Amino acid sequence: MNKITLQILKGTRDFLPLQYILRKRVIEIIARTFEGFGFEPMETPSMEYAETLEGKYGEEGDRLIYKFEDRGGRKVALRYDLTVPLARTMAMYHVEKPFRRYQIAPVWRADKPQKGRFREFWQCDADIVGSKEVWADAEVIAVGYYAFKNLGFNDFTIRINDRKLLNGIALYGGVTEKEMAGFFRIIDKADKVGWDEVKKELADKNFSAESIEKTIALMVDETQGNRAIQRLKTTLKGISSAQEGIAEIEEIQRCLANLGVDKRNILFDGSLARGLDYYTGPIFETIIEKPRIGSISGGGRFDSLIGMFSGNDVPATGTSLGLERIITVMEELAMLPMTPTVSQVLVTVFARDLFGESLSVASELRSAGICAEVYVNDDKLKKQLDYANKKSIPLVIIIGPDEKEKGEVVLKDMEQKIQAMVPRQELVNKIKPMVVASSR
Amino acid sequence: MNKITLQILKGTRDFLPLQYILRKRVIEIIARTFEGFGFEPMETPSMEYAETLEGKYGEEGDRLIYKFEDRGGRKVALRYDLTVPLARTMAMYHVEKPFRRYQIAPVWRADKPQKGRFREFWQCDADIVGSKEVWADAEVIAVGYYAFKNLGFNDFTIRINDRKLLNGIALYGGVTEKEMAGFFRIIDKADKVGWDEVKKELADKNFSAESIEKTIALMVDETQGNRAIQRLKTTLKGISSAQEGIAEIEEIQRCLANLGVDKRNILFDGSLARGLDYYTGPIFETIIEKPRIGSISGGGRFDSLIGMFSGNDVPATGTSLGLERIITVMEELAMLPMTPTVSQVLVTVFARDLFGESLSVASELRSAGICAEVYVNDDKLKKQLDYANKKSIPLVIIIGPDEKEKGEVVLKDMEQKIQAMVPRQELVNKIKPMVVASSR
Repeated sequence: MNKITLQILKGTRDFLPLQYILRKRVIEIIARTFEGFGFEPMETPSMEYAETLEGKYGEEGDRLIYKFEDRGGRKVALRYDLTVPLARTMAMYHVEKPFRRYQIAPVWRADKPQKGRFREFWQCDADIVGSKEVWADAEVIAVGYYAFKNLGFNDFTIRINDRKLLNGIALYGGVTEKEMAGFFRIIDKADKVGWDEVKKELADKNFSAESIEKTIALMVDETQGNRAIQRLKTTLKGISSAQEGIAEIEEIQRCLANLGVDKRNILFDGSLARGLDYYTGPIFETIIEKPRIGSISGGGRFDSLIGMFSGNDVPATGTSLGLERIITVMEELAMLPMTPTVSQVLVTVFARDLFGESLSVASELRSAGICAEVYVNDDKLKKQLDYANKKSIPLVIIIGPDEKEKGEVVLKDMEQKIQAMVPRQELVNKIKPMVVASSR
Repeated sequence: MNKITLQILKGTRDFLPLQYILRKRVIEIIARTFEGFGFEPMETPSMEYAETLEGKYGEEGDRLIYKFEDRGGRKVALRYDLTVPLARTMAMYHVEKPFRRYQIAPVWRADKPQKGRFREFWQCDADIVGSKEVWADAEVIAVGYYAFKNLGFNDFTIRINDRKLLNGIALYGGVTEKEMAGFFRIIDKADKVGWDEVKKELADKNFSAESIEKTIALMVDETQGNRAIQRLKTTLKGISSAQEGIAEIEEIQRCLANLGVDKRNILFDGSLARGLDYYTGPIFETIIEKPRIGSISGGGRFDSLIGMFSGNDVPATGTSLGLERIITVMEELAMLPMTPTVSQVLVTVFARDLFGESLSVASELRSAGICAEVYVNDDKLKKQLDYANKKSIPLVIIIGPDEKEKGEVVLKDMEQKIQAMVPRQELVNKIKPMVVASSR
């Protein structure tokens, strides 16, 4: 028999149950939070025509799109994110607006795999299409906040800024409209490379020393928080785009207070730029300090993207939670209870001719909503108990010939290391509270 | 602005919320049923090395694998099914056995798209690895049965046969071991093309008239059910593989009875062959008569597939539920309650300066686990009520200046077309039973 080389592609992962149970739990909590805000689930294909995706992500992004020709010679691409496919659907179909949808799904990028960066990874997006009000921005910021709270996060900061304010700052510094996208793409790197490096890069791109000095002075750390907003209001008096941006940020803050979002988790940050070209208004991202892993969510308003498909602009805003980083942090901080198995009970098989009894008991438990696994090999009981131990299945049932005759079973609590005889007809009622306590 | 052609690839689909809510519900019911039997969730990458998938699906299957070269020049393929990736993982990692896993995920086939056949579609697989006992086959058959019951199906038939019995029948008819795979691939078409066509095709492939007559006489419709088993037992006396197959089928039937599976949903069918080459023992599929759509699940024992990766055989058996056909049937039979939206309440905005009130009310409802959407445009109230009607959101809340002052809200039941004033502090308790009744 030809043995095949056993490997998977770099940047892709197998998730065995031990990892995937946790992953699924996180996805469910995020989905439930999104639905709590009235976001509806939606799906788009993994494959799109390449031209649908091209030209949306900037030069570097475009290079990372997985593209190939299918058997019909069509140029096909794997989904790079969930936002551009959303924009396409919003141009293709009529939906009642304001339209809320979420999508939790894999995306693919032909990136260099490294720690925490994968070629196949999941995004969790919630967007509102068809509202130009910053109320919508507040809603998507809040849904992200509650998703993190529901996952058990407390120490995180949602940094908020506004592209209109940034434009105002850039204008104030003498940067032209045409130069702005390039300008902000460099500013966006400050977190990673530091402000000195940013200044150098801007100078390399021929921004004047005065422009650089004036703009960055208004964006650096000292200008965070609400006092910074007041200072900017004064400094940028007369620059209407800046004043508009500031007004939007202030209204978002009021909305977030009404939505019960803790002030301590929110921070105006004049230096936040977000890399993507298509943002047009409020922008935001969520930062974790411990462990330092960068942003675990990001988003903003993109009022022109849908227009690239439909020909006329439709306002939209959204947030994207990064599942991989969220799970990395939760694992590092041991934030999730270990759920090593979905099985709540293992029904062992005492002897070949008693297997039918084991099946009947398993079937009764299952009808009562208890997750019951039946051991399907004719192995020694000791081996079966070892199996339950290794898998951390909390309860084990044994039915020998004596038990069968008396209409009883042996119920073993593997953690407490105790066992008891339980009449068959009392078994479900006996087990139910035990498995609820171990909670799934 | 360049307008892009708006289209998606043939054989792929967008699922807007109206469709996707239903789809998600079906997936959840199947997942919950699988977990009830102790199957653990697991995931493998969408992309695999092409050589991992090649040579497992027969010539025709291999042709339908999506293959391309990635930027590193690696030959890459999109997952064609969930069974071969499972076999790869079972050879790559150590897991406690008997190992139960399920996976509900998309697969891709470069097939000709037609009604009910897609290039991207979902499979729901449950498998047990590491048990040679037919107990395991009975468990995977039963988990499929309960999944269909939990989805609301009643009129379906699980047809069961055994490759060992088929081998015995073929031997009895003079078909050699070498010819068998080809023989069964033709037999498998009987459902689609009829027995006359099958006979003709077998004759074309040089099977003797006597072989064809003798084998098909033992497989056709008249030989279904338990009396057929008894006849085959006698006719094939002395052919050990046939007797083994019959014994397996009988033991599976006993196990299914213990598992509470209704006898009327189970049928021995000597003509069932299943197309895939890799089956080695019991095989089964689920048929719906109304509407006639073919099989909605299929599976069987594949004791040699993992050996293609690991070098030594590991017994395994599993079932695969076809999500697309299941949903097609459920839609045609109107089996699922329409859930047009996840939103249980729409909180309207009475006026711009009262929006904060609307947000506070929405936030209170959400904290109580109620899915509350807040309307995020400054539109006339009539337009907001129209929106709720079009989306079938059952409850609407209005907070005008009077209500704000009195600490009350207007609660409208959109279906009953009634409304009432409700004090803010009683709102959650008032709404909770109403949304539970409309059930999600």
